[in-house]
Amino acid sequence: MPVDPNALIEITAFKWVPDFARGFVRDFRARWALEEIGLSYRVRLIGGGDDRPDDYSCDQPFDQVPVYKEGELCLFESGAIVIHIGEKDERLLPRDTVGRMRAIAWLIAALNSIEPYSGQLADIDLFSPDAEWAKLHRPEVVESVGRRLSQLSGWLGDKQWLEDRFTIGDLMMIDALRGVSEAELLARYPNLFAYVERGKARPAFQRARNAQLADFVELEAA
Amino acid sequence: MPVDPNALIEITAFKWVPDFARGFVRDFRARWALEEIGLSYRVRLIGGGDDRPDDYSCDQPFDQVPVYKEGELCLFESGAIVIHIGEKDERLLPRDTVGRMRAIAWLIAALNSIEPYSGQLADIDLFSPDAEWAKLHRPEVVESVGRRLSQLSGWLGDKQWLEDRFTIGDLMMIDALRGVSEAELLARYPNLFAYVERGKARPAFQRARNAQLADFVELEAA
Repeated sequence: MPVDPNALIEITAFKWVPDFARGFVRDFRARWALEEIGLSYRVRLIGGGDDRPDDYSCDQPFDQVPVYKEGELCLFESGAIVIHIGEKDERLLPRDTVGRMRAIAWLIAALNSIEPYSGQLADIDLFSPDAEWAKLHRPEVVESVGRRLSQLSGWLGDKQWLEDRFTIGDLMMIDALRGVSEAELLARYPNLFAYVERGKARPAFQRARNAQLADFVELEAA
Repeated sequence: MPVDPNALIEITAFKWVPDFARGFVRDFRARWALEEIGLSYRVRLIGGGDDRPDDYSCDQPFDQVPVYKEGELCLFESGAIVIHIGEKDERLLPRDTVGRMRAIAWLIAALNSIEPYSGQLADIDLFSPDAEWAKLHRPEVVESVGRRLSQLSGWLGDKQWLEDRFTIGDLMMIDALRGVSEAELLARYPNLFAYVERGKARPAFQRARNAQLADFVELEAA
């Protein structure tokens, strides 16, 4: 069982987030990668506002989760954390240069070629659905997300994963795609929809999701 | 001189872009990294629309530049390309795990914690300054960019670079920051402003910028 209070690896996670964010907070990505290779980790739960540790910005300059600690290493940015975990195990990140760099390229594509667009749509749908600017701008944002999904769908074709096997590139891309806030938009590309379902069906994905949700549940019960 | 038609490394770049984009197209990042370590590269200039090579989406799924080719390796995403170049030379990427992963964390912070915000501001200022949604939404976007700059400024303090020496993390962060389309916003943080100027003063930065500009100039002269 990867969640272990005595594990050497520590990640931070939030004690509480609104319902719509549960299962989607970015510590999920670290949990999923660790679950894929069966590596134990402990969780340090942190709060918001006054409940955030005073020195937290030393660990996470943008005041977010997760922070990953392992011995001398203190790491932020879920993308960097997942690369680091990937480097521990060939099942997540091939060892040959071409396979390794292609996986890293897809991880970065999720973070810089998909998420900046899907994130704008999520901002509108989750935080400002009734704002005048959002109503006026939403069709353009949907179009820009759709363009990226169409390109990605074209690349994926009938492949199972973005390259010839599952890697950290798929892990990050699937996590970015499941954050697309308009379900019909992803469903327009049946191969992408199936790709995301394929990722979500992985036992490691499910364990990671349940572990993140369990931390919120424990708080509510407290 | 790194630009060499016989070099083993090839990058793609655009033949033409509008004036405001000159010096800022993303092949710049690969050029800058290569210049820092004196590694030669050749440039394959591509056009837009009908002038784009038919099979280009096999190399770059999102139809952008740069593509990086080196032997069997065909790579996209400027972030991945810069990591790959960094791995060739300790001057760009420390070899010890902590130094290496901290540099990669900052590279990813530039791509996923700064650029998604500064990119929204650039979209407004460069492409939609007069749109009604843009006028209504701009103050919020400025605020979100400002929040990130403030956090980054707090981290940087009076340091020269984000960690104890220049790395690919600084290269990517400086390139992201110089893309902030409201000059006064960056100038509110004098340490960040000086940090960007420090990066731009590096001879490798200047050579890379001149090389990108020269490719456009040659086209105009043709």
